[in-house]
Amino acid sequence: MPTVRLLSDAELSPEAAAVFDDIRATRKTDYVNDFWRALANDPVTLKRTWESIRQVMGPGALDPLVKEMLYVAVSIAHGCEYCIASHTASARAKGMTAEQHMELLAVVGMAAETNRLATALQVPIDPKFREPA
Amino acid sequence: MPTVRLLSDAELSPEAAAVFDDIRATRKTDYVNDFWRALANDPVTLKRTWESIRQVMGPGALDPLVKEMLYVAVSIAHGCEYCIASHTASARAKGMTAEQHMELLAVVGMAAETNRLATALQVPIDPKFREPA
Amino acid sequence: MPTVRLLSDAELSPEAAAVFDDIRATRKTDYVNDFWRALANDPVTLKRTWESIRQVMGPGALDPLVKEMLYVAVSIAHGCEYCIASHTASARAKGMTAEQHMELLAVVGMAAETNRLATALQVPIDPKFREPA
Amino acid sequence: MPTVRLLSDAELSPEAAAVFDDIRATRKTDYVNDFWRALANDPVTLKRTWESIRQVMGPGALDPLVKEMLYVAVSIAHGCEYCIASHTASARAKGMTAEQHMELLAVVGMAAETNRLATALQVPIDPKFREPA
Amino acid sequence: MPTVRLLSDAELSPEAAAVFDDIRATRKTDYVNDFWRALANDPVTLKRTWESIRQVMGPGALDPLVKEMLYVAVSIAHGCEYCIASHTASARAKGMTAEQHMELLAVVGMAAETNRLATALQVPIDPKFREPA
Amino acid sequence: MPTVRLLSDAELSPEAAAVFDDIRATRKTDYVNDFWRALANDPVTLKRTWESIRQVMGPGALDPLVKEMLYVAVSIAHGCEYCIASHTASARAKGMTAEQHMELLAVVGMAAETNRLATALQVPIDPKFREPA
Repeated sequence: MPTVRLLSDAELSPEAAAVFDDIRATRKTDYVNDFWRALANDPVTLKRTWESIRQVMGPGALDPLVKEMLYVAVSIAHGCEYCIASHTASARAKGMTAEQHMELLAVVGMAAETNRLATALQVPIDPKFREPA
Repeated sequence: MPTVRLLSDAELSPEAAAVFDDIRATRKTDYVNDFWRALANDPVTLKRTWESIRQVMGPGALDPLVKEMLYVAVSIAHGCEYCIASHTASARAKGMTAEQHMELLAVVGMAAETNRLATALQVPIDPKFREPA
Repeated sequence: MPTVRLLSDAELSPEAAAVFDDIRATRKTDYVNDFWRALANDPVTLKRTWESIRQVMGPGALDPLVKEMLYVAVSIAHGCEYCIASHTASARAKGMTAEQHMELLAVVGMAAETNRLATALQVPIDPKFREPA
Repeated sequence: MPTVRLLSDAELSPEAAAVFDDIRATRKTDYVNDFWRALANDPVTLKRTWESIRQVMGPGALDPLVKEMLYVAVSIAHGCEYCIASHTASARAKGMTAEQHMELLAVVGMAAETNRLATALQVPIDPKFREPA
Repeated sequence: MPTVRLLSDAELSPEAAAVFDDIRATRKTDYVNDFWRALANDPVTLKRTWESIRQVMGPGALDPLVKEMLYVAVSIAHGCEYCIASHTASARAKGMTAEQHMELLAVVGMAAETNRLATALQVPIDPKFREPA
Repeated sequence: MPTVRLLSDAELSPEAAAVFDDIRATRKTDYVNDFWRALANDPVTLKRTWESIRQVMGPGALDPLVKEMLYVAVSIAHGCEYCIASHTASARAKGMTAEQHMELLAVVGMAAETNRLATALQVPIDPKFREPA
């Protein structure tokens, strides 16, 4: 059960309704997922968060599917079940195959393992990794 | 300062030396970074970890650069400075541009924000996200 | 399902029962929540944990509501759903408004984002921040 | 050493320079800390992040000092040393006393302990905590 | 609901089936838990993960029960409910008493508290802790 | 640099000095490490934290060395460098061999990997793991 009420369309403030309109237009679907219905209790945060996501996940230097997979990877590391489910669905909608999904998970798991080993060993960063890009 | 000694080539056990040979051959460089010199104190774990990484990061369904960026993303979420530095260097060596690097960071930051919001709001996962792939 | 049994009042050891008495007296309610019924399997840890919480969350230099909000913020960052639910309820009982709740979440989300950006960028701490308080 | 270059004022793009002007005007100081000089490599993310922070940390339902302390608490839970140092300095500048600082830390530590205990015990959330606010 | 299908024995690839045979032989039980049925969607990762676990958790310098308790401790810190449940069950099967279980939790909670305090205080590591082992 | 001053013996309040006496007596050494010198700025938290640690890490159902290794494991998962260094030193002082140290790290790394895989796969907990202990 959420810690705030999920707002129906009829309960939205005008500012929140405008954000929902933009979500629907951008995603080309009438469906607005429940994360936004929870966040709609705070129209200012709803608007800022949506506009930030739209900017970050929009066209840029990285492929949209790569961005979704990065989102899934971070969500796993942070243990956010809702985000794992929603962004895994988005990645699939953008073309992620079952094989790519499992390979993504293998990379995340492997990174988790060596992250903890490197932290445990307290190895100083090799100067070589600090060379100018 | 590391919590174990970093082993020089002369101090390696035969099994560890064989792993170092494979690292050098696979990466086509004589340089073996200090993470492996720390792990070499335990040749069995050294061998298993290297062979796992070689498998996971080798050819597959995902582009090698995408895998490095996923590695960086997870390392940031886990707060592993060594891993961030080493895999950022690897990603650059595989062609990551400055613009892609900054966009990767923007995605990680945005995911962190909505991960925590979704966790705080305790929104149940929309059934829609559970539809068969 | 919990990993240990939740003890009813009738199952408490005398030492655990004394802690429950103090919880009831301090909170001015007969209700003892299930976290304590799980912890009651280890009366020594139950007693130490309760007395520590009572001390930390008792009167001091910070407002009791501020302390509850700090508790919620940390619980979100650690992904503890039980703690988010229970301390959000406590914060509301101490007067947190819906507007304050959403603003608390906005701060947590924003901090998560810049935490990960700063970690990724590995920016050394400005000497200015180290000036004597 | 940062993973990107820290830009001097002379190296800023016009869009980044405009953000630095706003940081200086909002904070009423000429000093711009190094986090922003790193982020300035990506003027779009710099602008979005600064404007988001300005909005979230600006006047609202919570006291500005409370917001800074929440920021510190989350930064500790995420292990971001830069953020702990910078927001601890900000909190002090906004009036946090040494006693309040230590009490904040006590709450964070206590929350960390019970967060892990509740997660380990897998206690289901009491229905009582789900009552409408 | 899992993000991938849990495979029945009849659906396993020959390579996955061979891993399941080894799990059954090693654990001396016909029961294969659902984690492996999910991972079976990627036989290569299934095989590598199982063989790594078998090696790491097999006979060595540490007692098998101690290893299970370490596994539980890490799983709590990472907030993995599935792993807490499965490795708590394994630890019990290997002889962990109720008293040891609760003491394990007390250590994990205490470590969480001082971990966050030490991070918040940013205390440099005492040279004494760096003395050669 | 720490976020608070490290207090010398001469600067301790009487209550803090009494805690330092007990640390010295319990550990049978004149050396008090810097974590406690930072925490001494808040004698109440110093006293509570020390007494809690002394209780948790004292004689009980688990071997003292096992407790130190659990402490190290949790500290790695939380990324606390100070705690990793200090408790690795304590574990060595209590007899942890180099081989045991490396095996402990292997378990922590392996747990990190499967923790993230299980979280990503969102596998529901097998009813079998819920059977009464």
